[in-house]
This record gives sequence, structure tokens and C-alpha cells, in this order.
Amino acid sequence: MSVTIETRDNYKYFHPIQTRWNDNDMYGHVNNVIYYAYFDTAVNMFMVDNAGFDPHDATVVGICPESHCNYHKSVAYPNKLEAGLRIDRLGNSSVRYEVAIFIAGDEEAAATGYFVHVFVDRETRKPVSIPAIIRSAMETILADTPSSGGAAS
Amino acid sequence: MSVTIETRDNYKYFHPIQTRWNDNDMYGHVNNVIYYAYFDTAVNMFMVDNAGFDPHDATVVGICPESHCNYHKSVAYPNKLEAGLRIDRLGNSSVRYEVAIFIAGDEEAAATGYFVHVFVDRETRKPVSIPAIIRSAMETILADTPSSGGAAS
Amino acid sequence: MSVTIETRDNYKYFHPIQTRWNDNDMYGHVNNVIYYAYFDTAVNMFMVDNAGFDPHDATVVGICPESHCNYHKSVAYPNKLEAGLRIDRLGNSSVRYEVAIFIAGDEEAAATGYFVHVFVDRETRKPVSIPAIIRSAMETILADTPSSGGAAS
Amino acid sequence: MSVTIETRDNYKYFHPIQTRWNDNDMYGHVNNVIYYAYFDTAVNMFMVDNAGFDPHDATVVGICPESHCNYHKSVAYPNKLEAGLRIDRLGNSSVRYEVAIFIAGDEEAAATGYFVHVFVDRETRKPVSIPAIIRSAMETILADTPSSGGAAS
Repeated sequence: MSVTIETRDNYKYFHPIQTRWNDNDMYGHVNNVIYYAYFDTAVNMFMVDNAGFDPHDATVVGICPESHCNYHKSVAYPNKLEAGLRIDRLGNSSVRYEVAIFIAGDEEAAATGYFVHVFVDRETRKPVSIPAIIRSAMETILADTPSSGGAAS
Repeated sequence: MSVTIETRDNYKYFHPIQTRWNDNDMYGHVNNVIYYAYFDTAVNMFMVDNAGFDPHDATVVGICPESHCNYHKSVAYPNKLEAGLRIDRLGNSSVRYEVAIFIAGDEEAAATGYFVHVFVDRETRKPVSIPAIIRSAMETILADTPSSGGAAS
Repeated sequence: MSVTIETRDNYKYFHPIQTRWNDNDMYGHVNNVIYYAYFDTAVNMFMVDNAGFDPHDATVVGICPESHCNYHKSVAYPNKLEAGLRIDRLGNSSVRYEVAIFIAGDEEAAATGYFVHVFVDRETRKPVSIPAIIRSAMETILADTPSSGGAAS
Repeated sequence: MSVTIETRDNYKYFHPIQTRWNDNDMYGHVNNVIYYAYFDTAVNMFMVDNAGFDPHDATVVGICPESHCNYHKSVAYPNKLEAGLRIDRLGNSSVRYEVAIFIAGDEEAAATGYFVHVFVDRETRKPVSIPAIIRSAMETILADTPSSGGAAS
């Protein structure tokens, strides 16, 4: 299970993350579950801020078929955090974000993972092409050297 | 159930609150439960920022015997929010914060409530006097006209 | 702040509540916020189980204008809990549930509170009369001696 | 991204999972984040129920360095769910659980993932051997055909 620690310069978009009192579990650090709430929030916020995505009215929405996290070191409320994003795989209807959680000011990520969005019609839940305005925003945070893994469909 | 809508100038301390994607419930607005996470976070952050409170090491900690919320209008991710605090009742070992949640920039509170902290010894969980440094910070956000209700013990 | 401890025989409907690992906060007990998730879940489950309420399709839904909790003693994962409900105030469009959280098998409530639901049209969010099938279910859990407080509207 | 759908007979331990009202996000299904709360709860409950693990007093505790989930079909409150567990990799200080979430009664998993626990000294947070009583319990849910991946350390 060797895991490369990622640094800030590997990410293209940053979103501040505010910890909450009850993010900490009884071991005194942010519970493993909560990192995924940070991922989800940062990914959606990227679309809100950069592509005018409105989760209340959008007829095409992103749903998550896969997520992953490696936890490298503890973070805890009241730490101020940042989520870093880049995109390694951009397909017709799906996208895979690489995500990292940093303690504000740290060079090395406290956690790294990925988060896949498949775009679907809000009513039918059938996959559709990523809307052009969202795709354009995504292209601005493509990794310099995309992963060699199979392209997302 | 007449409820007075509170405005910003009734509060003495403000803390920004970041909404999260899954704060919204299936009706598309922040779930009633989550407001209490905002309360909890703002109250503890007040102590962290103004009285050097360290939840990991403090030997005297605040636990909550009572909380309350009135919801006046919906808020929703990705709204940016603020929590406003003031103190109406400051006793020997307990304090009652009046709390309000504002959509950033709004004059009128979207929700108002209160949150009581009783200070206890971290190990024995017996009530103790509020530490002097915390009490001093609390005195800076006392309401101009404290409620006439019975003082907290 | 004298608070009457309520016992099981004061409640008319019980719903088991499963605690989760991250319900516990860093003080090792269920965080004050989470009790409201128990309230919300029990109240909606009462309608699902007893009045065929379907939160996905219902055109009339209950939204919460007010909630309250008094915490009497700690509960913690992995405790098994039960939520007890009764109704003290049943109006045309709103209802106030008295709610208690019990450690399974305990006579005395670990926490007591209330939770108000106002029924609204799902689209317009305007108050409407409580649907007859739901009202009938509610009448089966009316308190024997309703509170003398002003009736809910 | 071909993913094998797992069925119930591939799992060795089952734990019922109760959904909560606010598990559902604004798309009306359980938010991707919450599945990890189910994982965490089931894994810890396995240790509580089968190895006498007490998260409040244990001097050796499991912390999570890695988790993963593939979401195959939606689940939603008020669905009744079950988490299935088996162990594919059992090392000296760490264990990897394969986890699946089933709608109660379904043969095919709605979601599948894994959850790694590294056992550490509660104070020093240094890895230690898995306690014998916990290891014995783990051995009862080993997969019939462990994955060929590198053994956990």
C-alpha cells in the first residue's frame, strides 16, 4: 500500500473547508467519513463557482458512482482546511476528480482521494453528455499529465 | 407561537458558516438538524478564537444541556451563512447563548435559537466555574438588555 | 431550569434508533446535534409506518419551524436507543410532537424535547391542512392530558 | 470501470443499518458520504459484538488509512438496509474489510467497497499487533478465496 504524498502544486483549484465541532469523532480527529463530505462540497462548489451550476434547478446533475480516500495524517476541528482539485480523466458523461485535503498552509496533503461524477438527466437518471459550460470549466483544471488509466466513459 | 425576527444589530459576534452539499435534505434546503451543527461550531469557535480554548487539551469543557431553534426561512447549500451570537444569561458554571443564522448580507435572521453550555471537569463531568479567561471573553458579548428569565445556575 | 424527567409510559409510539460510530463527538458521547436527527427520523418514520407517508412522492410534506431538546444524561455509540413520541398539540396544519430518547430498556428518558411539523404544499410551500390519513394516525398518539399551551395553528 | 456486482453469499457477517431522514440528499437518495458512515458503523459493531471491543476504554483502537466505495444503485430513507462484511486481507496490525450495502432482502449489493483498519496504541497512535481476541473474531469472517493483492502490513 505505498501511497505517494501529494503536494499543493499538483492541484489546480482550491476551496477552503471549514471544519465543524462534530466532524471530530471520539478519537479527537476528523472522522474518515467526513472527508467525503469535504470532497462532495468542493467538487460541487467548483461547478457552482466556475460553471454557474445550480443544484436546485439544473436539469443535468452529477451523481457519484465511485469515491476513494487515503488518509495520511490526522486533521481536527478547529483546523482550517483546503480541498485541492484537479481532473485526470474527462470523458463524455463522466469525470474523475483527484482531490486532496490540506491543513491550511501545509505543502503536503493530509488526505488524497478521488471522486467520480457521472452526469445524468435529473428526471430519468440516464447518463448524458457533460454540459458544455461545465466541460469548459473542467478543462481549466485538467492535470498536466493525465493518469494512464482507462478513460472514463 | 409568535416569534420575533431578530436582526444583525442584536448580535455581538459573527462567525462565517460554510454550507455543505449534504446539509440539504431531500426538500432542497438545509435540514433542521444541521442548524444545531452551525450553533455548536460557532459557540466553540467563539471560545477558540477569543479565549484560547483548546477542545483537545482543555481540562474544563462545555457540554450542552439544552438547545432550541426557530426556523424562519429556508437556507440552502451553496448559500454562504453567518452565525451571530450574544449572551443573555451568564451564570457561575453555565451560559446561554442566543444564536442566529443569517444568509450572508441579510439583515434578518433565517433562524434563531439558543444554546446552553455547562462547564464541567473533563474527567468527572461535574460542573465547575467557568474559567476566568473564557468568562472575560463572554462578557464582551453580553446582550445590552439581558433577558429577564431566571439566571442560569 | 427545572426539567421533569419523563418516563416511558408517557409516550405512545416507539421507534428503535441505531447509533452510529460518528454520532459520538470528541467527548465520547452522542453529540447534541445528533439527537435532532433521531427526532426527525422517528417523526417521519411514524408517518411512514402509520400513515403511508412517502417522502419521495407526497404532495403535502411536513417541514420543521421549531425544535427543542433537553439533555439529561449521556448516550453513546454503541448504545441501542429508542425514540418515544406523543402529540400534545394538533392543529389544522401543524402538530407538535413531544419526543424522548431512551437507552433501550431504561425507564427514564436520556433526553426530551419537541419537534413541530407544519404541513405545506410541496411546490408552493404554503401551509395546508394535515391530510386526513396522517391526522388519523396522529390522533392515536395524542397525549392523555394535552399541554395547556396555546394550540398550534 | 467494470465492477462486479456482489451478492449476499459473498459476505460472512451482516449488520442491519437504519437509514435516517437526512441521509437523503437533495436528489432524494442516500448521499454518497453516508455509505461510509454505514461502513464505519458496521465494522466497529462487528468488533463490539464479536470481540468485546469497547471504543471508550480500549487501549488499542482501529483507525482508518483507506476507504473506497462503488455505488451501483440508489438507496433512500426509509429503506431498511444491511451491511455485509468479509475480510480479504488480514495482516499483523491491519485488516481490510470488504463491505457491501444491501437493501434488506435484496440479493445484489447496492454498493460495495472496502475499509481498512490499522490498529494503534490509543495514546501514541503507533501501529501495534491486532489484539488476539479481535483477530480470532476476524478469522471467522475471512473470505473463502482471499484476494491475491499484496497482504496488508
